[in-house]
Amino acid sequence: MDELYDISIIGCGPAGISAALNAKIRNKNILFFGTELCSIKMHKSPIVFNYLGFPKIKGEDLRQKFLKHAEESGIVLINERVEAVYNIENEFHIRCGEKTYRSKSAIIATGINYGRAIKGETEFLGKGVGYCATCDAPLYEGKRVALIAYTDEAETEGNFLSEICEKVYYIPLYKNIGFLNERVEIIRGEPIEITGEQTVKNLVLDTTTLEVSGVFIIKETLPPQQLVPGLEMDGPHIKVNRNMMTNIEGLYAAGDCAGKPYQLSKAVGEGQIAALHAVEYVDKATSSDKMSILLR
Amino acid sequence: MDELYDISIIGCGPAGISAALNAKIRNKNILFFGTELCSIKMHKSPIVFNYLGFPKIKGEDLRQKFLKHAEESGIVLINERVEAVYNIENEFHIRCGEKTYRSKSAIIATGINYGRAIKGETEFLGKGVGYCATCDAPLYEGKRVALIAYTDEAETEGNFLSEICEKVYYIPLYKNIGFLNERVEIIRGEPIEITGEQTVKNLVLDTTTLEVSGVFIIKETLPPQQLVPGLEMDGPHIKVNRNMMTNIEGLYAAGDCAGKPYQLSKAVGEGQIAALHAVEYVDKATSSDKMSILLR
Repeated sequence: MDELYDISIIGCGPAGISAALNAKIRNKNILFFGTELCSIKMHKSPIVFNYLGFPKIKGEDLRQKFLKHAEESGIVLINERVEAVYNIENEFHIRCGEKTYRSKSAIIATGINYGRAIKGETEFLGKGVGYCATCDAPLYEGKRVALIAYTDEAETEGNFLSEICEKVYYIPLYKNIGFLNERVEIIRGEPIEITGEQTVKNLVLDTTTLEVSGVFIIKETLPPQQLVPGLEMDGPHIKVNRNMMTNIEGLYAAGDCAGKPYQLSKAVGEGQIAALHAVEYVDKATSSDKMSILLR
Repeated sequence: MDELYDISIIGCGPAGISAALNAKIRNKNILFFGTELCSIKMHKSPIVFNYLGFPKIKGEDLRQKFLKHAEESGIVLINERVEAVYNIENEFHIRCGEKTYRSKSAIIATGINYGRAIKGETEFLGKGVGYCATCDAPLYEGKRVALIAYTDEAETEGNFLSEICEKVYYIPLYKNIGFLNERVEIIRGEPIEITGEQTVKNLVLDTTTLEVSGVFIIKETLPPQQLVPGLEMDGPHIKVNRNMMTNIEGLYAAGDCAGKPYQLSKAVGEGQIAALHAVEYVDKATSSDKMSILLR
């Protein structure tokens, strides 16, 4: 079986980097997931005034400093999109495509940029709507599906689906398409609504209506409650206590996904709090493991 | 009457500086209290590894960067020791010696370095034990008092007491005494216990026992529950919610005094959260003031 890590950190914005740094300094064996587009808000921020220590710094410059600090501390970013986090027998299973990583504890730091749901998206979730094509593809063998792509990472999934499904419609919501094979049909338009009866029947765009059995929505970041089944929310945010712990033991959240204000120092501070409590959780779990071995 | 400020920030460690910076950026009229000795923990820290953006920086260098950031943002430190914060009719009255400042909201960021209480200190509080000599001096006219001095700021109080009291014993717990007049008697020793019956009768040192009616204890920082009457605590920390608000409306806390972990990023983040919520509180209060004027 794969190695069991101490702490998985999902998201590489300021909260995620801070969590990774603090866990690493405490000598934990970490998994740090994120894609290059992460902390896009910092990237786009012309000037940051209120991150203490750097008066008037460009967002991108500060982001580079954060990444450099992480790199110099020996932290390696796993450039994969996390599709699900499952809590199984006191472990967290982090699914990225066909690969699954395991850790004792996990920290969600995925930000708040997951966009508004399309009409019908939540209603038909699990009834034709899904967020992971590679996972659910077998259900759509020989059927017609649509893929709403917020990011070019959806291209791999589109190509994969085209090998299994009768028809794949691909609706790109980003610029500069990379590679899609000739069996994938690109449709331009803005998604308006997903309709159906028991299950999905149509995807309505502002340009046309597609008759499909399935709609995959590939976003940069999944909404936390989709990412982690059973996760308790407080409105649009993950519900946490003062230790940044969620309703699931060993699972923490930090940064924008854990609440307002959406600010840098707050995110960095919460990443630190989450990491230090995760470290404590892992240490306790480890020492009770040792104890139970001794008692055998 | 004195000007009514928007937000008072008490304490100039990382949480206090961050709160001041964020309140100032939001264009609030602030009072920022602290003494030069503040953030002594940063000053003493040989290397900080985990303040994101500065890999391996000397604590004192980082402290200087924080102070410079504040200064460049137009923040002025009021170098006075705050002796009490009173919540009076939706205002906060900040008492420093004989001077009182007023603000609509306040943030406590006094850290956790207020040391262990001496045996009997809590028991005889208000029954002969006090934290502010200039305030309570009239009660001890013609009597014998002892002054336990953790900081040289106690010297002014010792000199003042000597004009009123029959006898002033001065027990310095710091090096390098500045100026004490000849009527103040310096006693060397470690305070062990304050004893008495209804009220204080003796201060027991490891070297001698002093017969006194009053014992003043002058610390760098007062314990929060002494500083703010009615403040709810959670063990040694100020009880706060996720917005860093205390049990008193309009009063916030941030940094070490608000809970563990005692870490820089956590303190800076909490200072930011406290400030932004205080700003919101002040804005609401101001707009409802305007509303009530309009309705007259």
